[in-house]
Amino acid sequence: MATMKAIVKARPEPGGLEFRGVSIPEVGPNEVLLKNRVVAICGTDLHIYNWDAWSQSRVKIPTVLGHEFAADVVKAGEGVKNVKVGDYVSGEGHLVCGFCDNCRTGNGHVCYGWKGLGYDIDGAFREYFVMPEMNIWKNDPDTPYALAAIQDPLGNAVHTVFRADCVGKTVAVYGLGPVGLLCVATLKAVGASEIFAFGRSNEYRLDLARKLGAHHVVKTKETPPVEYIKQHTEGQGVDVAMEIAGTPQAIEAAIRSAKMGGDIVILGIPTAEVSVDFAADVVFRAVSIHGVTGRRIWDSWFKMKGLLKSGRLDVGPVITHQFAFDEYEKGFELMKTGNCGKVVLNF
Amino acid sequence: MATMKAIVKARPEPGGLEFRGVSIPEVGPNEVLLKNRVVAICGTDLHIYNWDAWSQSRVKIPTVLGHEFAADVVKAGEGVKNVKVGDYVSGEGHLVCGFCDNCRTGNGHVCYGWKGLGYDIDGAFREYFVMPEMNIWKNDPDTPYALAAIQDPLGNAVHTVFRADCVGKTVAVYGLGPVGLLCVATLKAVGASEIFAFGRSNEYRLDLARKLGAHHVVKTKETPPVEYIKQHTEGQGVDVAMEIAGTPQAIEAAIRSAKMGGDIVILGIPTAEVSVDFAADVVFRAVSIHGVTGRRIWDSWFKMKGLLKSGRLDVGPVITHQFAFDEYEKGFELMKTGNCGKVVLNF
Amino acid sequence: MATMKAIVKARPEPGGLEFRGVSIPEVGPNEVLLKNRVVAICGTDLHIYNWDAWSQSRVKIPTVLGHEFAADVVKAGEGVKNVKVGDYVSGEGHLVCGFCDNCRTGNGHVCYGWKGLGYDIDGAFREYFVMPEMNIWKNDPDTPYALAAIQDPLGNAVHTVFRADCVGKTVAVYGLGPVGLLCVATLKAVGASEIFAFGRSNEYRLDLARKLGAHHVVKTKETPPVEYIKQHTEGQGVDVAMEIAGTPQAIEAAIRSAKMGGDIVILGIPTAEVSVDFAADVVFRAVSIHGVTGRRIWDSWFKMKGLLKSGRLDVGPVITHQFAFDEYEKGFELMKTGNCGKVVLNF
Amino acid sequence: MATMKAIVKARPEPGGLEFRGVSIPEVGPNEVLLKNRVVAICGTDLHIYNWDAWSQSRVKIPTVLGHEFAADVVKAGEGVKNVKVGDYVSGEGHLVCGFCDNCRTGNGHVCYGWKGLGYDIDGAFREYFVMPEMNIWKNDPDTPYALAAIQDPLGNAVHTVFRADCVGKTVAVYGLGPVGLLCVATLKAVGASEIFAFGRSNEYRLDLARKLGAHHVVKTKETPPVEYIKQHTEGQGVDVAMEIAGTPQAIEAAIRSAKMGGDIVILGIPTAEVSVDFAADVVFRAVSIHGVTGRRIWDSWFKMKGLLKSGRLDVGPVITHQFAFDEYEKGFELMKTGNCGKVVLNF
Repeated sequence: MATMKAIVKARPEPGGLEFRGVSIPEVGPNEVLLKNRVVAICGTDLHIYNWDAWSQSRVKIPTVLGHEFAADVVKAGEGVKNVKVGDYVSGEGHLVCGFCDNCRTGNGHVCYGWKGLGYDIDGAFREYFVMPEMNIWKNDPDTPYALAAIQDPLGNAVHTVFRADCVGKTVAVYGLGPVGLLCVATLKAVGASEIFAFGRSNEYRLDLARKLGAHHVVKTKETPPVEYIKQHTEGQGVDVAMEIAGTPQAIEAAIRSAKMGGDIVILGIPTAEVSVDFAADVVFRAVSIHGVTGRRIWDSWFKMKGLLKSGRLDVGPVITHQFAFDEYEKGFELMKTGNCGKVVLNF
Repeated sequence: MATMKAIVKARPEPGGLEFRGVSIPEVGPNEVLLKNRVVAICGTDLHIYNWDAWSQSRVKIPTVLGHEFAADVVKAGEGVKNVKVGDYVSGEGHLVCGFCDNCRTGNGHVCYGWKGLGYDIDGAFREYFVMPEMNIWKNDPDTPYALAAIQDPLGNAVHTVFRADCVGKTVAVYGLGPVGLLCVATLKAVGASEIFAFGRSNEYRLDLARKLGAHHVVKTKETPPVEYIKQHTEGQGVDVAMEIAGTPQAIEAAIRSAKMGGDIVILGIPTAEVSVDFAADVVFRAVSIHGVTGRRIWDSWFKMKGLLKSGRLDVGPVITHQFAFDEYEKGFELMKTGNCGKVVLNF
Repeated sequence: MATMKAIVKARPEPGGLEFRGVSIPEVGPNEVLLKNRVVAICGTDLHIYNWDAWSQSRVKIPTVLGHEFAADVVKAGEGVKNVKVGDYVSGEGHLVCGFCDNCRTGNGHVCYGWKGLGYDIDGAFREYFVMPEMNIWKNDPDTPYALAAIQDPLGNAVHTVFRADCVGKTVAVYGLGPVGLLCVATLKAVGASEIFAFGRSNEYRLDLARKLGAHHVVKTKETPPVEYIKQHTEGQGVDVAMEIAGTPQAIEAAIRSAKMGGDIVILGIPTAEVSVDFAADVVFRAVSIHGVTGRRIWDSWFKMKGLLKSGRLDVGPVITHQFAFDEYEKGFELMKTGNCGKVVLNF
Repeated sequence: MATMKAIVKARPEPGGLEFRGVSIPEVGPNEVLLKNRVVAICGTDLHIYNWDAWSQSRVKIPTVLGHEFAADVVKAGEGVKNVKVGDYVSGEGHLVCGFCDNCRTGNGHVCYGWKGLGYDIDGAFREYFVMPEMNIWKNDPDTPYALAAIQDPLGNAVHTVFRADCVGKTVAVYGLGPVGLLCVATLKAVGASEIFAFGRSNEYRLDLARKLGAHHVVKTKETPPVEYIKQHTEGQGVDVAMEIAGTPQAIEAAIRSAKMGGDIVILGIPTAEVSVDFAADVVFRAVSIHGVTGRRIWDSWFKMKGLLKSGRLDVGPVITHQFAFDEYEKGFELMKTGNCGKVVLNF
């Protein structure tokens, strides 16, 4: 049986990765075999690398990591109809049932039984892997590999931005990690009125937010964000506040920074509960708080495609580092420092 | 100067009402003078009667209570164009600026500077009172007085039901006070698939929910509601959960009883903060939590009018008690017991 | 090879059906074999029976007719995951690609390459037939067979009603054939404010509209509908006008009977072009005209399921006639007279 | 009584304008007196100048023309609350009742009884004029006068763009007059995927469309637009087609260039009826056709404000000519040639 190298979570401990030979999988009915061009490291991969509480509860040892990729189709299984050998593709990393009420009404991101590529099942950090045809996304041939590989997190950002009405609206973004930065880029593309980008203290990422055109870039370590927003919105708050930092403080600030009747969109995953004054902050102010997970399948992908095509969505500055596939440890260690945007690995 | 009797919060203490002579107000430009037919006691009036923390912080002594009414126009001020003497009317009790971005886009319920009739300014519990023409709602001539008088809370219920998509959907209602019961009636009128009505223990109100056609009527003192819902929805939860009880427990249950991708609508006013596990309960489940206050001005009123006209919205069973205007103490005391639906006072 | 009887369009002429022995099909991967309980005759089947211009251009001889059915799963092909032998099912008669932008965003009804069961490919009017698993709809076990079999046209009606906002609104229905009547029933279930049902002259169907609870039932042969509507809406028109008659006159009337800012929904298939005064009737009045085809896959089905479950959607009166499967000619001839609602055939 | 100069339609004939002394109006209750800075000539003014059929049926002689303006408040009438002397303002030229169901639900553009400034009543082409306070829009102090003056047609464009979902979508614009060009600019600001701009033959305006960033600029005199679109959209058509040319040909092309399930938005006012094949072009393709008139009051204004603030909506290139107020004839004659964008008149 042919083998290839894969990045495997091999030991239940921080780090604990191995660059290991594994067999090339067989392609089944309705599946395609993919050969990778570029993969990218997600924050989720970093969680598993760091072996945090969430990873320990969800990921079995050993598991091949990774779900962000750009690849070529090299083999098509029986019954495959819409994809063919030679297609240049990426894919949706959430494997859904396709049959529940959510899947069947355009809301596969909340399928009751979805599984995640690279944590629930073996992932994309290997030379070859298989995907169901239904999870394949055909890339425009002129999409650069690195850009194609980060459509998963860009799709998260697109989903987050479209979870509320941001077009022509004032929007606060809490958290300037890769997805927060991609939200800034997306908001810029759809004509958000004023973008308030909040990062705690990392100058590298605050600079990236400036480069992407945020109207306000604010260090929350020094400047309280809710007060800053109120000063710049005649005391009313923003139309939409997005939380991508994953901290209780950011959730509290996001809720309190939305105007009366405004929206709060939460993609970040806080590690602790947050106490909410529903009477004063939610009911009397009639705000809506929306949780976001994954990408709308496939609405977020089509919106992303359209925005990329428009020429207005510039995510180039967010792809800050490229390494060879076998230099993955450099990528993970760099991501731990926070001094980067997206980190991609080239085959 | 002519005088009339009014129900006045006269002393800063529980009870503390007086049936007192006050002068009949002059009608100013763009205002109309109204002569009452029927008024109804709101839960807000009861809060002020009980002189709870909220009342103490907001209501000045003395203030005429009341904001639910059906009346005749008896005088029209200068510049009034759309209303005339003899019109049979009710009105929106939130006085809004009409000029802020929310007011100007059909969202006056979240006007930044609204004032409430009967707590921020003198209210409707008197024989005559004035309203701005812009707050007047013309009733269909054949609307019974008592029904016309409760359009304010019915409008709350309509707003709550339309804050999420309830048509043909499974919906849980937490709290069977008058507004909760009006939500049940409204859900019935718009074809909610299955209505789960949850009350703590009050048999009188549980019976009313049954009478209104809730598919499930459950006493939460005996039956844990989230578990009950899961058992009856293949483990998934309801499309929409409504919280009108105003307790932290009900908010927690409402959030956990919504299905993945579902909606939680909160109209109740909890007196304590609630701790929320945003990661598990909001983000990964991609639910939306919506605060509701007042009525959409005037969208909720037109929807209410349409539903009443349809013949499908039957709120008759909710109007359980009628007293003479000067017997108001009986009404307040009855409401304290909870053994009633809406209580109205006839002139 | 086992055979069974099927209703086949055998000759290119009016009538031209044969009750013919055909082979029982083999079930392929991702497909299920169904054994019919009840089928229903669609207006589309009647078009093919009558061999009108549309049929001649689209249907090949011979073709097994039919796409409305209730059946049991008797065999499941390789790879079938969500359906099993013994399931009681109906199905979506539009076979879609599942991969185009419309299919992938919950809009399979406008798949660029869909094919229709019973006219583009052999249909359901036979004892056994196969369907792709993805087209299967599981019925609630307690759904009567005849009701289950008419979910296709009921889904059309649900799609039509939800194409605009009809809840609590005034709605005109032009055309009281089976789908028009199902629209009346659906409008009733969702609390339409006033339903104006317009039929040309067929008393049988006008009576059915009355039975279903339309607020106004009007014979357009005697009463001009637009004028009637204006008289009953203070001169403004209805919120929504639905055209299910398929005549140029009805389309003209529908457009002119909508209020300023209102909606016109067209499901009927007129056989001639219609001249429209866009300036006066569309632009200055800011109406929207919506074409409807098929059912939203699967949103319309889930809404239908929810409304049926609510107890508020009563379609019983619309199922007026039942025949044995081999008495199909009686059914077709009855439908030609118009003195019926839905006609079903029992196995 | 003080007088001032005004541009008056004085004679019922083409041209027929007079620069005439008229009295400065008195300010009534709830009104403000404005002193103009800049006015702009609308296509509607040109219709009246040309004295076409529409003008003859609607405009009385004499009438002061004009409804696009930027001005200062110089006097506030009794009861005015939200505007004060010295405010720099523009205004909504449609005077609405404020009380009908459309006005009261954020849809004043379809008020049943609206009147148009500058054609139903005396307009803004004079040094001083009065407006109801409720029609006033406060400009940001740093908005250039010429830009502030064209917010009425820009608001039309914003309304047109938001009548369908254009963000990240392919959009065709038929007609490159000033409003068509403003649509192109707005589509660019909200991230439309590909903008197809169609003009008949005027090179000046085709060039402006290029300058504004349309992805495709096509001369329909030489290239059939529907075929062009199909070639560039894999045969499917655009998500949204906008008709701002006001010709039957453009309406036909717009309808046929939308993809299955797409939207057609019509702001142009065709002078003849258009024959539509509803079966083939509307019903089976499930498109929606939306009429647009005026601006949503005030939703379109707030969206416009937000987009201008974003820095992404660049309408500078559309304002091509400026004249002194008394040189208005030059402006009208230039507009007749079509070799211009917006023409403004400075005080």
